[in-house]
Amino acid sequence: MELEFLGTGAGSPAKSRNVTGIALKLLEEINEVWLFDVGEGTQHQILRTTIRPRKINRIFITHLHGDHIFGLPGFLSSRSFQGAQKNEPLTIYAPKGVQDFVQTAMRVSQTKLSYKINFVVLDKEKNIFEDERFRVIAKHLDHRIECFGFRIEEKDYPGELMVAKLRADNVPSGPLYGQLKAGKTITLQDGRIIKGQDYLGAPKKGRIIAILGDTRQTDNIALLAQNADVLVHESTFAKDEAQLAYNYYHSTCVQAAQVASRCNVKKLILTHISARYVGQKARLLEKDAKIIFKNTKLANDFDVFKIPFSKK
Amino acid sequence: MELEFLGTGAGSPAKSRNVTGIALKLLEEINEVWLFDVGEGTQHQILRTTIRPRKINRIFITHLHGDHIFGLPGFLSSRSFQGAQKNEPLTIYAPKGVQDFVQTAMRVSQTKLSYKINFVVLDKEKNIFEDERFRVIAKHLDHRIECFGFRIEEKDYPGELMVAKLRADNVPSGPLYGQLKAGKTITLQDGRIIKGQDYLGAPKKGRIIAILGDTRQTDNIALLAQNADVLVHESTFAKDEAQLAYNYYHSTCVQAAQVASRCNVKKLILTHISARYVGQKARLLEKDAKIIFKNTKLANDFDVFKIPFSKK
Ligand SMILES: [Zn+2]
Ligand SMILES: [Zn+2]
Repeated sequence: MELEFLGTGAGSPAKSRNVTGIALKLLEEINEVWLFDVGEGTQHQILRTTIRPRKINRIFITHLHGDHIFGLPGFLSSRSFQGAQKNEPLTIYAPKGVQDFVQTAMRVSQTKLSYKINFVVLDKEKNIFEDERFRVIAKHLDHRIECFGFRIEEKDYPGELMVAKLRADNVPSGPLYGQLKAGKTITLQDGRIIKGQDYLGAPKKGRIIAILGDTRQTDNIALLAQNADVLVHESTFAKDEAQLAYNYYHSTCVQAAQVASRCNVKKLILTHISARYVGQKARLLEKDAKIIFKNTKLANDFDVFKIPFSKK
Repeated sequence: MELEFLGTGAGSPAKSRNVTGIALKLLEEINEVWLFDVGEGTQHQILRTTIRPRKINRIFITHLHGDHIFGLPGFLSSRSFQGAQKNEPLTIYAPKGVQDFVQTAMRVSQTKLSYKINFVVLDKEKNIFEDERFRVIAKHLDHRIECFGFRIEEKDYPGELMVAKLRADNVPSGPLYGQLKAGKTITLQDGRIIKGQDYLGAPKKGRIIAILGDTRQTDNIALLAQNADVLVHESTFAKDEAQLAYNYYHSTCVQAAQVASRCNVKKLILTHISARYVGQKARLLEKDAKIIFKNTKLANDFDVFKIPFSKK
């Protein structure tokens, strides 16, 4: 599980930072890549990574500002052009309006995609995706336009079957092991009753990633971020600009760090960096945040963060 | 007068070539920059040039395929964001559909531009722009989708007033010189009749630039290209692929060269290069064209071509 930042800038593309695009790479887990926001040029950035567009099967859009969606028509077209098949559909979770934008672009350009797009409208807070491996929760944030944050929860892994212990207790191997691994209780031919739970290691906690859209400070942030292994938080403004941040519906680097500290987050990644902060000034955003929350990183384009299981 | 190539690729962006975008820089002439096609990432390319988005006041779109228009919403938004004023409007000349695409993008993203956009629909062949300095003619090409080529004609410059000759003939300087420069005939106080035309140098021929969209070979190409100082012609396919080019509504490098030769063009620039042609293979497109028409250049991203007055 890795997060790869395709664009870490705010508003307009700059030489050093593209507009927002974040890839959550779940290749080892489920051989999928999920994309969070698709600013213009996201497909250009992907060209410079090992990400294959066909592998991207879910796109989550935090809000409809241009710097978060104008790369959609081009990305979707190229995914088709580059050979995505009919059986490789894509689901877009986004506030109302994205379907209108994408379909107008496709109609006007007479683009026929080789695969189907499912549009899921985000309008209220809910679990927007759940299967046996992952759950994604969306909650409203506080931006100038309807905006969401996402909490991606990996489900816990069951404990490993302690085969050595079973052998030591002379439990014969075979299909019974599968039942024990599933936690069931079985009766052996010699009459002994064996409880699976006695032979299972501790379950491994799944990881939690919180990815926020643009936002002022608001209560829902804590609900998304609580105990996350990684929190991706916008940092559009510097330490001393809390009033400006409030006026423009954004956050400061220090506010992000305070969230991380309060919510027992393991790692904080700052993104959505204004072009006003370059070099030393950008590093200062990280430095000021670190005073509040030590494990903070300021993301740059093409940064990759591995997300390890927590040691507990 | 310069042509700057912002994107020289076909279909999808590639590492070495962005999708189509061409700037005609008329800074010395009228302090304006005109853009021909705006593929995704055109604004990113502009960041790496000296072009200021505010100076771009006319955009000409050859056709509505995504690789020629998906950069419009982002470019238009950033032009506003970067401070274009209410009195710096922009006119977009394009086939029907662009207004729908742009306005949907602006509405969905809740973008309010600081300046006005005038949409001029290209539907039939005509002079689409004319003032005292330039005329632009649009003609249909033959592509899978309605597509236009443009002929930009700079009007001739009147000859210079021969001041030395006037002095030698004892014509007193003063406001009369202005009338002579305008070609009028005047009567001096001493009764002599002086014809302006006797004191004017030869008029200087204006330059002609032909910029074509994607196209098969078709008769209108000659009408656009005839006697052009520069012809920008697509070269999507290689020498031996005329049948493929025809099937896909495109041209080969050799077909472009034949046009240049037949139409008495001074310089041919090949663009819209498929990602299949890299390095040696791309150079071969130019080489094969040069056998037919010597003054051929294959455009690469960020190439700038000065367009000199012809020596006559
Ligand atoms: Zn925003
Ligand atoms: Zn085309």
